[in-house]
Amino acid sequence: MDLQLLEERIQSEAMVVSPDVLRVDMFLNHQIDTTLLDAIGAEFARLFADEVGRVTKILTVEASGIAVACAAARYFSVPVVFAKKGSSNRTLDQQVYCAPIYSFTKETTSTVSVARRFLSADDRVLVIDDFLANGAAARGMLSLLEQADATLAGIGIVIEKAFQPGGLALRAQGLRIASLAVISSMEGGTVEFAHYD
Amino acid sequence: MDLQLLEERIQSEAMVVSPDVLRVDMFLNHQIDTTLLDAIGAEFARLFADEVGRVTKILTVEASGIAVACAAARYFSVPVVFAKKGSSNRTLDQQVYCAPIYSFTKETTSTVSVARRFLSADDRVLVIDDFLANGAAARGMLSLLEQADATLAGIGIVIEKAFQPGGLALRAQGLRIASLAVISSMEGGTVEFAHYD
Repeated sequence: MDLQLLEERIQSEAMVVSPDVLRVDMFLNHQIDTTLLDAIGAEFARLFADEVGRVTKILTVEASGIAVACAAARYFSVPVVFAKKGSSNRTLDQQVYCAPIYSFTKETTSTVSVARRFLSADDRVLVIDDFLANGAAARGMLSLLEQADATLAGIGIVIEKAFQPGGLALRAQGLRIASLAVISSMEGGTVEFAHYD
Repeated sequence: MDLQLLEERIQSEAMVVSPDVLRVDMFLNHQIDTTLLDAIGAEFARLFADEVGRVTKILTVEASGIAVACAAARYFSVPVVFAKKGSSNRTLDQQVYCAPIYSFTKETTSTVSVARRFLSADDRVLVIDDFLANGAAARGMLSLLEQADATLAGIGIVIEKAFQPGGLALRAQGLRIASLAVISSMEGGTVEFAHYD
């Protein structure tokens, strides 16, 4: 993808609603630009090209991860599994893997779950999500994979907020993470991007 | 699409978990088969071919509608807007349209909302959803469109349960509804399909 395109959309349409929170409702999280979505899927396929034909599933969390995960999955020709935000009756069900996800924005912990039959030790999984900030959602998904004895191929993120600790901590664990846009700062409401080689 | 394909998946993989509830977790609502998803999108484009180039947006409800709405939107080259299941702070926000949706399965009423800036009187909208049963979700989306003075182009449904009253009632209002699979009965746990010309 022309990554410039994504950065331009963030600059022109995203709203910095607090020092930590970026709202991308205009094109990703409430209204979804389907042309941009296709480009995002193609870029994940390019960044994880060596995993095309190897990964067996793409894992994300409802609701905002679903569109980008499906856009990527077309290029990998694999199913998407989306973790469901837990209702108590699901999580009491012994047929699901569960993990807690703490939301720093809402200051609440929610539970996500995946039915056991959709993740197994035979699966090699690419995790896809819209945002990486503190890494709570990613760690929740990693916990689901560990419970299933599935293999993590890598983590693909649309927008990483590098001034929050999730990306650094996950990379320190040796995990492969690819982010399409990396925001280094939102101070004063101005979005600045970092570019890695 | 080869509609037979969708019916076969329902017959072989869907679970009738109660007289009214069909679980399609294997390929649509938890795990998503991306090949089937593309076929679903193409079929919506075929059924609403006269609306390609006319509709300006596709509207659905999170979470399970997002994948099918995005699959269809590629063929219409329009954005998807997904109504969010209401948290109280969002629904108190004057910047959103809200509508109640009663869940017959859960016996609870939830609120869905769409930011006002994503629906206007200039919009001609195709509503897409995974299921049509009692019609509560569809009516909630119609309410959002009415509040926005937007025009409804039609309603595209992946699986209609015709033994529940939603489809009949909405058609009696003169609405254009196209369902890819129409289930006439799930009695005794056996799924039977209806075929309309």
